[in-house]
Amino acid sequence: MTRFMRAVVLRRPGGPEALRVERIPEPSPGVGESLIEVTLTGVNFDDLERCAGAQPELPLPAVLGVEAVGRRRTDGQRVVALLRQGGGYAEVVAAPEAHTVEIPAGIGDPQALGLFEQGSTAYGALSLAGRLRAGESVAVSAAAGGVGHLAVQLAVALGASPVIGLASTSAKRQFVTTLGADLVLDPADPELADRVREAAGGGGVDLFVDSVGGAVARAALAGLAPFGRLVCLGWRPGTSGDPGTGGGGDMLVGTEDQAGVVAVTTAQLAERSIGCAGFWMRHVVDDRELLCGIVGRLFELAAQGQLTVHVDRTVALHEVGAAHAAVAARATSGKVLIDVRREV
Amino acid sequence: MTRFMRAVVLRRPGGPEALRVERIPEPSPGVGESLIEVTLTGVNFDDLERCAGAQPELPLPAVLGVEAVGRRRTDGQRVVALLRQGGGYAEVVAAPEAHTVEIPAGIGDPQALGLFEQGSTAYGALSLAGRLRAGESVAVSAAAGGVGHLAVQLAVALGASPVIGLASTSAKRQFVTTLGADLVLDPADPELADRVREAAGGGGVDLFVDSVGGAVARAALAGLAPFGRLVCLGWRPGTSGDPGTGGGGDMLVGTEDQAGVVAVTTAQLAERSIGCAGFWMRHVVDDRELLCGIVGRLFELAAQGQLTVHVDRTVALHEVGAAHAAVAARATSGKVLIDVRREV
Repeated sequence: MTRFMRAVVLRRPGGPEALRVERIPEPSPGVGESLIEVTLTGVNFDDLERCAGAQPELPLPAVLGVEAVGRRRTDGQRVVALLRQGGGYAEVVAAPEAHTVEIPAGIGDPQALGLFEQGSTAYGALSLAGRLRAGESVAVSAAAGGVGHLAVQLAVALGASPVIGLASTSAKRQFVTTLGADLVLDPADPELADRVREAAGGGGVDLFVDSVGGAVARAALAGLAPFGRLVCLGWRPGTSGDPGTGGGGDMLVGTEDQAGVVAVTTAQLAERSIGCAGFWMRHVVDDRELLCGIVGRLFELAAQGQLTVHVDRTVALHEVGAAHAAVAARATSGKVLIDVRREV
Repeated sequence: MTRFMRAVVLRRPGGPEALRVERIPEPSPGVGESLIEVTLTGVNFDDLERCAGAQPELPLPAVLGVEAVGRRRTDGQRVVALLRQGGGYAEVVAAPEAHTVEIPAGIGDPQALGLFEQGSTAYGALSLAGRLRAGESVAVSAAAGGVGHLAVQLAVALGASPVIGLASTSAKRQFVTTLGADLVLDPADPELADRVREAAGGGGVDLFVDSVGGAVARAALAGLAPFGRLVCLGWRPGTSGDPGTGGGGDMLVGTEDQAGVVAVTTAQLAERSIGCAGFWMRHVVDDRELLCGIVGRLFELAAQGQLTVHVDRTVALHEVGAAHAAVAARATSGKVLIDVRREV
């Protein structure tokens, strides 16, 4: 007997108005998949891109949503999952077991959802790609964003000092201060590299995590100390063969700066003894042991109160279009959640 | 009363024949300098470049030699010094105190000389720029060279595994094996990136220290594991504004590949979650605390037998021309020393 569920379905690319709540059959779990009865899913730039038709490799019609938290139907265990193919904007999703982890008792659903993908990205950027050591200075761009606001808190938790945030409005800068940043800068400052260098104590910053690209990434390189590293986030398949268009990260969508990719030479790096690295979450997700180790560490830090996912808003399924519009307008700070069971 | 000394003087740029032993007045120590009665100095690619006229910013006539070991005249203390302006190919040199360190009792003059500049470079590349963690795999190009043969031993001492060396002749590869490398590869192998990946266990190498540039650096990038780093050595002032010419490192002199500089984009790095860094020894030398910390660590490792400078040959002052020719022909492994007191 076919069971039906409510889901947000995208039938053809479009703006937020293209997202409609429908009643459709529940998915059937494939090999290595389990059904999850979803409580919350998140709005990500990835969803906006797919909605706009920027991911033609994925078929339509489709249920969007690349992450979900809820209960595994087989055993009632609370779990959080990454959904590369989408499917999260629904009451039930078939999630790959390799990309699903169980949630410990002390961690609520909103925290688990926010920590899993965006917390792991922040951790990967700081520790795996950025090789952060305690006592080093750290700067984070888009520091009020989903990844950024966790990166600021994580940098503090990992012993970085000072921690410098970049955020584009005074409201966001105020928010970043509450996260524990020692200083918050405006990325539009024409002397950004100098401001970063001063903020780090004069000699430059040891680690700069950037998800904006373009001018901010160039200022980040210019503001590095000897042995400092720039870590670039936000790569998407299809961008790397085409420097100058896209590739600047999830914080790029809707901004003027689409030319996010920056080129460097080994001589430029050696002249200043600096480094430049990239981080793509797929390399964590595809390594189950690494993924579980990182997520376990994040849950621990959250349980100790050192890491909190800030929820900007929680909307119902029928409000997803408006939530997309708010994210596209960069009018949100932290995480935008969808409560799939809320009907009004 | 003017005191005279024997020294190798370069009056105008030329080949090895331009180097002549002369009797000239001893130098007078400037502010912040001390006289050292030199026992040994080393032959470096830097000297070959200056000899050939490639460092027009430094005045001639001049005494070459960018490093020296000996006794400080004021107190008889054994010291080793870096000499940015040259002066080491002489019985007495005026050395900057900021770039001079005292040598502990257990370390002989040849070891101290080889560890100071080249050991610090190897350490800086592995640890400061490369952020090596124990258990990671490491590859080192020009592994039989002055820096390379120390980098291989240091990687082992710092807990790297496996340690992979690259060397261009079978004699050099044999030598690199004796240094503790688990595998030694030929950099001319057309499938070098694949060989490196296999040698590191299939997934790629975690850290690649390269002083060759060009095709080797490109293969190194291609052979990196996720979160792997390429560290490029050998930058010289004047190269960074001009990608495609020079800049490939001291191991480049005399090879066909003068186009050592490699360009990468942030998108290429992010797609594979890899990094690329440069290392220039000046950033260690200019930080006295860092310099002393590193050299102290190197002396400790040498005293414990974990690090040994291999001396290729020791020549007298009047044999410096022949030593230059051997280094230019890449016919040496490890360190070439000049015993300034030897007269025959």
